[in-house]
Amino acid sequence: MTRVAVCQTEPVLLDLAANVRHTTETVRGCVARGADVIVLPELATSGYLFDGADEVRSMALPLTHSVFDGWRAALGEGDAVLVAGFPEAGASGKVYNSAVVLDRAGIRAVYRKTHLWHREKRFFTPGDHPPPVVETVHGRIGVLVCYDLEFPEMPRSLALAGADLIAAPTNWSRAEIRSGTEPPQVLVARAAARANHVFLAACDRRGTERAQPFTGGSIIIDPDGWPLATPAADHIAIADLPLPAARDRALSPVNHVFTDRRPHLYALNTPS
Amino acid sequence: MTRVAVCQTEPVLLDLAANVRHTTETVRGCVARGADVIVLPELATSGYLFDGADEVRSMALPLTHSVFDGWRAALGEGDAVLVAGFPEAGASGKVYNSAVVLDRAGIRAVYRKTHLWHREKRFFTPGDHPPPVVETVHGRIGVLVCYDLEFPEMPRSLALAGADLIAAPTNWSRAEIRSGTEPPQVLVARAAARANHVFLAACDRRGTERAQPFTGGSIIIDPDGWPLATPAADHIAIADLPLPAARDRALSPVNHVFTDRRPHLYALNTPS
Repeated sequence: MTRVAVCQTEPVLLDLAANVRHTTETVRGCVARGADVIVLPELATSGYLFDGADEVRSMALPLTHSVFDGWRAALGEGDAVLVAGFPEAGASGKVYNSAVVLDRAGIRAVYRKTHLWHREKRFFTPGDHPPPVVETVHGRIGVLVCYDLEFPEMPRSLALAGADLIAAPTNWSRAEIRSGTEPPQVLVARAAARANHVFLAACDRRGTERAQPFTGGSIIIDPDGWPLATPAADHIAIADLPLPAARDRALSPVNHVFTDRRPHLYALNTPS
Repeated sequence: MTRVAVCQTEPVLLDLAANVRHTTETVRGCVARGADVIVLPELATSGYLFDGADEVRSMALPLTHSVFDGWRAALGEGDAVLVAGFPEAGASGKVYNSAVVLDRAGIRAVYRKTHLWHREKRFFTPGDHPPPVVETVHGRIGVLVCYDLEFPEMPRSLALAGADLIAAPTNWSRAEIRSGTEPPQVLVARAAARANHVFLAACDRRGTERAQPFTGGSIIIDPDGWPLATPAADHIAIADLPLPAARDRALSPVNHVFTDRRPHLYALNTPS
């Protein structure tokens, strides 16, 4: 079994030191609890509600930044893997809304969010590479960031590429929730897990920034779309997942999530 | 506003006369209540749980069958449109799990279900054409049948082709429903409506056939994925929908369900 820990932190806007300290402690604590895969929110080192490009640039981290060494040290000498969101300082002054996949050997992958939400379009450059699927000793981990999940093509692409688990750092702006229902972002995540027969660990954030409340909707979901865990009082959700079980996408001897597809009948080009 | 009526009937297995009588009466009743679009379940004329190919063939209807004339007469002289599931007798003895779109002028479209569930694979030939979008005076109506909904590419294709409303006849086999949650098929339908900013009217059936209970999960959903109506005591769900409102797929001045897509980053081929 793979122990997945989703840490619903409350980043402090523009306070790198505080966020690095808290996330590093949190990662160390999760490893002590036996976590194999640890997920932090989108933009976990910076907060989300930037007021201008200067603020974003001031928080953007190159991949050589010491925060990644600190997180790697917190992972210890075992096989734990961290997926965490941060603003990435790229070439030519560009900043990306990125997520890193890290283990004791170092950075395994960096994914740059490809679908940007709202004011992110003012501050970030969208990524231009498909999301990664990282082979680990625990299983194959695919990565998406927040609004990416709203495009069914994204989790579909990851599952078709072999992901057993989709780890999704998010900052879900709090939306209307009608009585008796779950946040719409959770609905979408559950449907994505079910449609692709894949485990999904969405790590949301909590708190409010500049009057923008967040959902705090972190959830670990099984390949049938059922919720397995949400955060406990310590804001951490933990579940032990049989990741390789996601790999068999048969629903029964006669139905299969992938081979039942009829791609020649799908018309997925955006109308001009 | 377009009044959509979803009629969650209880077909009698292998009793065409009873099913034709009841559905025709139901259609007439909906028209009397001002319905503009009426949806009946999958295989509404035959029931679902066939025991062999002979049973299916005995219930298969050519498009010249009088049931379509009867339904058309029940629609009256106005602009009402009917979407209804039935087993279609095709060429060379093939039978399709089809849905017809019908108005006073006659048959506007026939859609043959392209993703077959479980034992349907023994009895039906899968369709080999994309689902239709039918232009009506009320708006553009796309059609899917049941298991098609589990493939996010299908509602996506219909929305990209311009559908304002997806009408989906279904026979949802009753699945496990964990406490406090909705049937998984409803989750999937709501996520499909939200992902594509499209109205969705799923017409399920009720009752039990040969020990197989059905979900009775009919629902009318808005383009944000919220439920608008479920069946009343008379097993009919009715909602007045501003169909053209679905046509503007902008979420805000900066986000758009279609133009935010990054199709060149999607890898949707089934692995070999």
